[in-house]
Amino acid sequence: MATAAIVVIGNEILTGKFADENGPYLVRRLRTLGVDLVRIAVIPDELDAIAEEVRRCSGLADHVFTSGGVGPTHDDLTVEGVARAFDVELEVRDELLALMDSYDLTLDDTARRMAMAPQGSELVPGQHLPFPTLRVRNVWVLPGVPRLFRAKFESVAARFAGVRVFTDRVHTDERETAIAERLADVAARHPEVDIGSYPRWGEASYRVIITCESRDAEAVARAATDVRNTVHVVQVT
Amino acid sequence: MATAAIVVIGNEILTGKFADENGPYLVRRLRTLGVDLVRIAVIPDELDAIAEEVRRCSGLADHVFTSGGVGPTHDDLTVEGVARAFDVELEVRDELLALMDSYDLTLDDTARRMAMAPQGSELVPGQHLPFPTLRVRNVWVLPGVPRLFRAKFESVAARFAGVRVFTDRVHTDERETAIAERLADVAARHPEVDIGSYPRWGEASYRVIITCESRDAEAVARAATDVRNTVHVVQVT
Repeated sequence: MATAAIVVIGNEILTGKFADENGPYLVRRLRTLGVDLVRIAVIPDELDAIAEEVRRCSGLADHVFTSGGVGPTHDDLTVEGVARAFDVELEVRDELLALMDSYDLTLDDTARRMAMAPQGSELVPGQHLPFPTLRVRNVWVLPGVPRLFRAKFESVAARFAGVRVFTDRVHTDERETAIAERLADVAARHPEVDIGSYPRWGEASYRVIITCESRDAEAVARAATDVRNTVHVVQVT
Repeated sequence: MATAAIVVIGNEILTGKFADENGPYLVRRLRTLGVDLVRIAVIPDELDAIAEEVRRCSGLADHVFTSGGVGPTHDDLTVEGVARAFDVELEVRDELLALMDSYDLTLDDTARRMAMAPQGSELVPGQHLPFPTLRVRNVWVLPGVPRLFRAKFESVAARFAGVRVFTDRVHTDERETAIAERLADVAARHPEVDIGSYPRWGEASYRVIITCESRDAEAVARAATDVRNTVHVVQVT
């Protein structure tokens, strides 16, 4: 199954000036698409931090999505950081310069900076997108502004469609400490199913939510039945 | 200035079953306390992933806070992962066993598992806390359940109090591409101030928010004046 990692780049997130909306958005979308998310990192606008984390995620996951740091200002270092991750140079792309010219943007140093891409990277055009989406090997470089992030991701999302994950949930009014050993036995009987245990507080009728997940719907059903026979089940409407 | 990193541990976050509340909470609290957050990582319930990320963050930041994976079930691996990060063994702590006994918890294998802590770690008691907070070197091991996470963090928060950061914001109706070069010059004139540029969409009266931040209030004021003399300012009420 395909795996993914997210690298959110921006001091504004780490300092709490803006809440990250793109990570949570991508968590939901990747789940729907059937892609297994294995890592999220939020890092500052620093070249070495970007290069190091992008390199790590690129080796760890099939697809990497970066968010932020692609604007024209001095603190926008993502494209340069991704180039450094793979030890390649930046080059001016004529197709980007031509786009800026067509938008009547002055071709000054700022525009030239925005027209740079790592050598060997791909510029993927998308319907309704003013600029193409940059792909460097398995890394997709997306903008931080949520509306643009979503538009660019959705323009390439179909490429990542995998096999969906099935989930069943069991609620119990037993304590997690009381069911831990029984649940470990259930998990051992169903190694093909991911069984999670999540204590909750303040929800009236139950104490723990147990989730069974797999791409094999029948395996989920078998494991959930086993869980239901093992703990005291509470019906939640 | 003191720095911090956050390691959020849990498949339930990466699969979108639950939204992470603890990261955002800590982002705000660390900012208020004057601690510079340098990294957030969200990783799965896997021993090697936990050990590797905790080791990395422990070397990178003064304080590390982990969230999640400390319950009694088979998927709770954080304490073992932190021990592995520092290559130390786990040991049963009599004080934890005694606490469980005092709560009438049966001292079975589950309880014994919950009474384990890495060798050389500290158990920090807190008012109103049923269990002490585990500290392993510069790593604070906090539970994933948001109410408990907050209670445990607040029981030790005063230890991290530093010098607060001052922020000033300037709004402009100029485009980010138009101001990028002027802003780079401003940033170069005020190296002691962190100057950020954030394009917004859909907010009626301005196009970019420029932030000036530093622990030196006068330096912030100087930089913000410089920004205001450099871009076309919009008053936002």
